[in-house]
Amino acid sequence: MQKPANGRKRVVIESVEPQIEAGRYPIKRILGDSVQVEADVFADGHDHVTARLLFRFDEISEWASVAMQQLGNDRWRAEFPVARMGEYLYTIAGWIDHFDTWRSDLEKRIAAGQDIRVDLLNGARLIQQAAERAGRDDADALRRWATHLEDTESPEAAQAAALDPALAAMMSLYLDPALETRYERELRVTVDREKARYSAWYEMFPRSTSAEPGKHGTFKDAEARLDYVARLGFDVLYLPPIHPIGQAFRKGRNNSTTAEPGDTGSPWAIGAKEGGHTAIHSQLGSLADFRHLLLAAADKGIEMAMDIAFQCSPDHPWVTEHPAWFKHRADGTIQYAENPPKKYQDIYPLDFESSDWQGMWDGLRDVFRFWLEQGVRIFRVDNPHTKSFPFWEWCIAELKRDYPDALFLAEAFTRPRVMQRLAKLGFSQSYTYFTWRNTKQELTEYFTELTQNRVHEYMHPNLWPNTPDILHETLQIGGRPAFIARIVLAATLGPNYGIYGPAYELLENKPLRPGSEEYFNSEKYEIRQWDLDAPHSIAGIIANINRARRENPALHASHELHFHPTDNPYLIAFSKLSADGSNIVLTIVNLDSFHRQSGWVDLHLDALQLRPNESFQVLDELSGARYLWQGAHNYIELDPGRIPAHLFRVLRKVRSEKDFDYYQ
Amino acid sequence: MQKPANGRKRVVIESVEPQIEAGRYPIKRILGDSVQVEADVFADGHDHVTARLLFRFDEISEWASVAMQQLGNDRWRAEFPVARMGEYLYTIAGWIDHFDTWRSDLEKRIAAGQDIRVDLLNGARLIQQAAERAGRDDADALRRWATHLEDTESPEAAQAAALDPALAAMMSLYLDPALETRYERELRVTVDREKARYSAWYEMFPRSTSAEPGKHGTFKDAEARLDYVARLGFDVLYLPPIHPIGQAFRKGRNNSTTAEPGDTGSPWAIGAKEGGHTAIHSQLGSLADFRHLLLAAADKGIEMAMDIAFQCSPDHPWVTEHPAWFKHRADGTIQYAENPPKKYQDIYPLDFESSDWQGMWDGLRDVFRFWLEQGVRIFRVDNPHTKSFPFWEWCIAELKRDYPDALFLAEAFTRPRVMQRLAKLGFSQSYTYFTWRNTKQELTEYFTELTQNRVHEYMHPNLWPNTPDILHETLQIGGRPAFIARIVLAATLGPNYGIYGPAYELLENKPLRPGSEEYFNSEKYEIRQWDLDAPHSIAGIIANINRARRENPALHASHELHFHPTDNPYLIAFSKLSADGSNIVLTIVNLDSFHRQSGWVDLHLDALQLRPNESFQVLDELSGARYLWQGAHNYIELDPGRIPAHLFRVLRKVRSEKDFDYYQ
Repeated sequence: MQKPANGRKRVVIESVEPQIEAGRYPIKRILGDSVQVEADVFADGHDHVTARLLFRFDEISEWASVAMQQLGNDRWRAEFPVARMGEYLYTIAGWIDHFDTWRSDLEKRIAAGQDIRVDLLNGARLIQQAAERAGRDDADALRRWATHLEDTESPEAAQAAALDPALAAMMSLYLDPALETRYERELRVTVDREKARYSAWYEMFPRSTSAEPGKHGTFKDAEARLDYVARLGFDVLYLPPIHPIGQAFRKGRNNSTTAEPGDTGSPWAIGAKEGGHTAIHSQLGSLADFRHLLLAAADKGIEMAMDIAFQCSPDHPWVTEHPAWFKHRADGTIQYAENPPKKYQDIYPLDFESSDWQGMWDGLRDVFRFWLEQGVRIFRVDNPHTKSFPFWEWCIAELKRDYPDALFLAEAFTRPRVMQRLAKLGFSQSYTYFTWRNTKQELTEYFTELTQNRVHEYMHPNLWPNTPDILHETLQIGGRPAFIARIVLAATLGPNYGIYGPAYELLENKPLRPGSEEYFNSEKYEIRQWDLDAPHSIAGIIANINRARRENPALHASHELHFHPTDNPYLIAFSKLSADGSNIVLTIVNLDSFHRQSGWVDLHLDALQLRPNESFQVLDELSGARYLWQGAHNYIELDPGRIPAHLFRVLRKVRSEKDFDYYQ
Repeated sequence: MQKPANGRKRVVIESVEPQIEAGRYPIKRILGDSVQVEADVFADGHDHVTARLLFRFDEISEWASVAMQQLGNDRWRAEFPVARMGEYLYTIAGWIDHFDTWRSDLEKRIAAGQDIRVDLLNGARLIQQAAERAGRDDADALRRWATHLEDTESPEAAQAAALDPALAAMMSLYLDPALETRYERELRVTVDREKARYSAWYEMFPRSTSAEPGKHGTFKDAEARLDYVARLGFDVLYLPPIHPIGQAFRKGRNNSTTAEPGDTGSPWAIGAKEGGHTAIHSQLGSLADFRHLLLAAADKGIEMAMDIAFQCSPDHPWVTEHPAWFKHRADGTIQYAENPPKKYQDIYPLDFESSDWQGMWDGLRDVFRFWLEQGVRIFRVDNPHTKSFPFWEWCIAELKRDYPDALFLAEAFTRPRVMQRLAKLGFSQSYTYFTWRNTKQELTEYFTELTQNRVHEYMHPNLWPNTPDILHETLQIGGRPAFIARIVLAATLGPNYGIYGPAYELLENKPLRPGSEEYFNSEKYEIRQWDLDAPHSIAGIIANINRARRENPALHASHELHFHPTDNPYLIAFSKLSADGSNIVLTIVNLDSFHRQSGWVDLHLDALQLRPNESFQVLDELSGARYLWQGAHNYIELDPGRIPAHLFRVLRKVRSEKDFDYYQ
């Protein structure tokens, strides 16, 4: 067996965390975060070991570094800040610290009253060796230290010099690089802007925004809706596809396979003779209108998100321009989408085993580029799990190289491993199973899984109580209390969440048929008219929820998400802290839409940073009510006829300088 | 960003288990074991996926493979046998199985009564493509199948051919290698002979084996002791170092720093003018005598283990031959061992940062080689954690390449990460903290850690209730009951265990001073005379324990080690199963050496493969007594005045062919 290049390196570095699949994928962080890194660092024998965390922005070739601290049991920790969007690298270096070992031994010898003359000379030799590695000024200084230690005439001065902390500090700068152990991998961090972790989405069909009944809405109409969306407090406005809609096999109302004249078709049947993924459906307006909408939204603090659905109607220009991008049947026709025995003849999927996969990858990337050039920075990607993983990894890296502020939401309602893979390979946000997690046990288990293991290192969940595809039976049956409970859960469990409106705030809950999760008269297949001022609208409650989110930093992340036990299976209670611990939010929801539920919550006071028996206030951000609580055991009563949730800000009593109590 | 070489590969393979530090180190297995491997294997979309586990002995370049089975949630599993000592490699390959997807879709189309003519042609095309990849005979067969499917004149025959399992079986052999995803790492397994996992060690100072009081024992005397060791049932006889002992700073009796004339010194102060690590202490005999002892032991089923302690007395030849292998103090003297303020001037440690590290590594390896050439195959390595890790990894790999049956026991009583690292890099067995784990809670936690997480993939623990360095206070104070309890625990918790005798069976328990773990009149520093026939000897009990180990395969590994609750904190109960489940051993020990203890054990019947309320026998291998038990709740009473342990073989009732009940 070959010997290693340098067998004198004795330090071991292993079990470095965080890392995803042995560093194959980056972890994710947000601008301004710190990355806390831990590792086992040790060596043979009893020599002292030292370790530094190395980090750099990927365009900078020099490593910066910070000393790691020992946690015990050979575990070390340090952290570094991420101050730029893009990719950082980090790794760890370790050394035997011979000087520190020598110094610590010297102290023991002195304490035991031993003769240390030879030891001082040993130390001087270490200092001389370090001087060889130092720049001129420090080398001179080190040689002066060495001379002190070698001065046998003045043993007391030599001993004092040997133990001088200034010497130790300088020596720590000149560890022998020839004996440095470098961790075998460089690990990566993708740094996104804050919206990757904290955002409130509103999905809206622009064609349903006209004030005139029956008329096809336009971007201008959508622009007129911006004030409403801003009033509700959302900061991302997401539009379903805005491209020309195919005529071939167009779907009729309620997903009928035969369209009637005048049926508008599904926006996801993308492409017609007017164009494909870079064209705009003419009834919505022009590209200039779209850009105008983008800017108008930005003025109101709203960012537009665009739908990218890589599939084609039979009329899409790619079908004739790039036939190799599609599968062909033995009879020469192009393979339509199907889930046998079901056929979706209005859709041609792309073939990711195409012989022209390289041309197709470029073409798909260029769709994103086109819209990035128009100013779009957020993309909700439709069914990414039916396109190949290597494509996404390459495509997102390509795009983020030029647009590090671009964000990608993966709409993948599929198996856990597939959803996780998409997050690992670059998607910024991920749809989740939240829509189908409704009981206390389901919610507790699922959010424990998402936040309390390695998944949170690379996945930013985005929670949707409804989408145009999913009207869950909880909403169908539960009505208004369920709509309120579910949006409170989404908005507080998820720093990212969204609703499909105005269906949501208007409590639209009629399914296509009993047992179906499809909407009746779904906007996917027709233009709808919405009465935004209807008295049953919960728009005001939603606006209040979003205000509470903005004002409580604890809801901007999932830091220390903690579930608190209650004695009632319908009452769920959980809390979060802001990263600095100064803001604490406690959410309690009645999951029963039909009955008033009451019971006792047993707060884990540690998780709320409260002392045992401390009295504190909880301020309900939804009702404005305040309660005075003490200790862990507190009574809850929630009535679905009113608002079936508390969104409590926890206020600890603080003694003011003037000796009055107040809460903060 | 660069595109991958082949972007058409759609399968993902990840989270492959077992692997140690991303495949940096091998897992360990024993000849005849199976290696069970699991992985997440999946792809985008809904196409069917297939996976194979690839494996090969490292000298064979061709992979063998076995189909993996789906476990659900995208997890797959398969296993392969290891039939040779040395190193195996394994990895995983995955494919989209287009034919299987097509076939499954076809069945759904047929069930729905759809027109399948074009689908049959699609299938024929897949078969033609596979024929291109097949050898001539199979290619011809495949083309005949394709012709059947293309025969539009006989639609029923075509459909039958399409669904013929023989066609599916043949198609599964010719998946497109161009679209194969190969897992990114090749993982390794070290395969040892069974003694790596299952062995009973007896440590004995050969110089204390003379029949004549005061006389220095020889290898011939040790040979005369073999029958005794064999009677006790041990299969490894381990001798402390047998090399010339230094004169400089020789230690006297009871570790005195001044030796009296005639003091024999410590065998670990290796080297004198007569020679070093490849020489033999002349009072023990010659190299020929040593080889004779080796063969005589083998005749009795006992394998000799040798002590390798890489440290030198100041008289060792290496000190003058290889001064660069040692650290030098500033006054030109060689640095002796120390733990300031303590000095060990009789020992020079080796310097693993030596400029001649390559020469030193070769020299140390050659020590092992010398003894391997004499026929030694088991080495107990003294303090390996004070020698560098890269050295051990290289050295053990070098030696096992030529001697795959060589075994190395790491004597590293140090921090967990260091002990684990030594096991990872190649040590076959590891000393453990067993000696210091004495209460029920300590034992339960420690053995759960060793057997129920990844550590068991690479570490074979070896449990010692005593060593010449460690006389635990449990033995000092507990006396005979403690000696019996501790050896029962070691022999049943550890498929590898050992004792330092005859001190152990003769209940030697006087410490150097109160509070010390050192023996009084330790054999490390003097010759001892042992009365093997003393009436208080527990040799008979030990022989019985070792017989029970041999006869119960459950004790040859730690398969399904399971702790069962008892209602008495002094009563510990645990069980193991043989790999095939046919042998079950349940050990129950009274950890109180002073009082009779009784209580109830609540057996986890699943772990014992018993049905609820089943009645069964437990046969105590130590006393020969049988008890008839039923269900989980059973009464235990153990008296330290007799034997404070049950070593139960669990016998299930089996109905014989003649309709009598018997137990097995």
